[in-house]
Amino acid sequence: MSKNEMSDQAEASRRPGGRSARVRADVLRSTLEALAENSASGLTVSEIARRSGVHATSIQRRWGTLQNLTLDALLTYSQEQLPVPDTGNLRDDMVALARLITAYLNTPLGAALAHAMAAVEEDPQLTESRAQFWQTRYDVTRVIVERAIGRHELAADTDHQMALELLVAPLHFRALLIRQPIEEDWIERMVDTLLHGLTAPGSTRTRPDSR
Amino acid sequence: MSKNEMSDQAEASRRPGGRSARVRADVLRSTLEALAENSASGLTVSEIARRSGVHATSIQRRWGTLQNLTLDALLTYSQEQLPVPDTGNLRDDMVALARLITAYLNTPLGAALAHAMAAVEEDPQLTESRAQFWQTRYDVTRVIVERAIGRHELAADTDHQMALELLVAPLHFRALLIRQPIEEDWIERMVDTLLHGLTAPGSTRTRPDSR
Repeated sequence: MSKNEMSDQAEASRRPGGRSARVRADVLRSTLEALAENSASGLTVSEIARRSGVHATSIQRRWGTLQNLTLDALLTYSQEQLPVPDTGNLRDDMVALARLITAYLNTPLGAALAHAMAAVEEDPQLTESRAQFWQTRYDVTRVIVERAIGRHELAADTDHQMALELLVAPLHFRALLIRQPIEEDWIERMVDTLLHGLTAPGSTRTRPDSR
Repeated sequence: MSKNEMSDQAEASRRPGGRSARVRADVLRSTLEALAENSASGLTVSEIARRSGVHATSIQRRWGTLQNLTLDALLTYSQEQLPVPDTGNLRDDMVALARLITAYLNTPLGAALAHAMAAVEEDPQLTESRAQFWQTRYDVTRVIVERAIGRHELAADTDHQMALELLVAPLHFRALLIRQPIEEDWIERMVDTLLHGLTAPGSTRTRPDSR
């Protein structure tokens, strides 16, 4: 799709579809904010209606369940905030994705959402949304691994989910659990360790100035 | 220390040091339970006194601050639950540690503590305890990396904290965030990927039956 076609689409979505698109954006934003503030408990359609100024019946007609709404909100936001990098090589794609995720986790809303996802409340709706969210995130980002296989950077039978889990997990671990800052340099060393392994000589070498 | 010496010590700790040891164990257990139920908020010395049946003044005399008490409770529990494996080779040490952590995260108390550590409340006391907890855990487990360096399995300048973070993070990520079960087979493939790298052919090969 060319830039012009995208502009035409954006124009078309303002009118006559414009109001509908604005309503959708308002409801999704209110859902995220409610989720970030209240975690799973306290998330109700009427609360989202109050925040967004959109009637609860309209919300229910459009999304059906609170689960669909939560999932739509989380996925839409993460797709906006976390576009899939395409730098032309695996290492730079992984470093770029790790940087985006780090920046996302450092925003107040990104941090609040991550904490909400880690919360202990076992609302079955949120549990289901969470599983679908991560599955969709993996499906979106697996293209990084597939392109690397196409360039013969990775073996054809590489487990794409393992690759992405090992990249994404340490970032969330630091941000949510250890609360340790994630430095640029650390991201690059982590990616190099994942690519070449701990047993590769010097793969996790500490920086000269940190010894 | 032989089994007999340990029994003698256990015997001795029942009398005359027995009461003191029992009080300590009761207070630490009550602290863990209060932390698991209430997260950081609501954790007070008087609540722990109520649960343990030990006077608040005795608790304060012994531990000084709530932070010291929390840290003592978390470290004592994790040292009991997570002894450092010493199998004679790096791969088996890493697999064994990952299995212990997985089992720990699957217990109700272990899961509750991990969730409490991930909670968003920014109680400065808990923040400090959390940082000290992870630092101590890294210091305890770095011996795995040091022994591997001694056996020439890893380069002498391996970053021990990076190695342990990359091992521990995916377990917490699955248990806390994705809520995906951690299979035996997955632990072994994860460790092999960390050791040999994504770019090693077949290092993250999916199981034949899962394709």
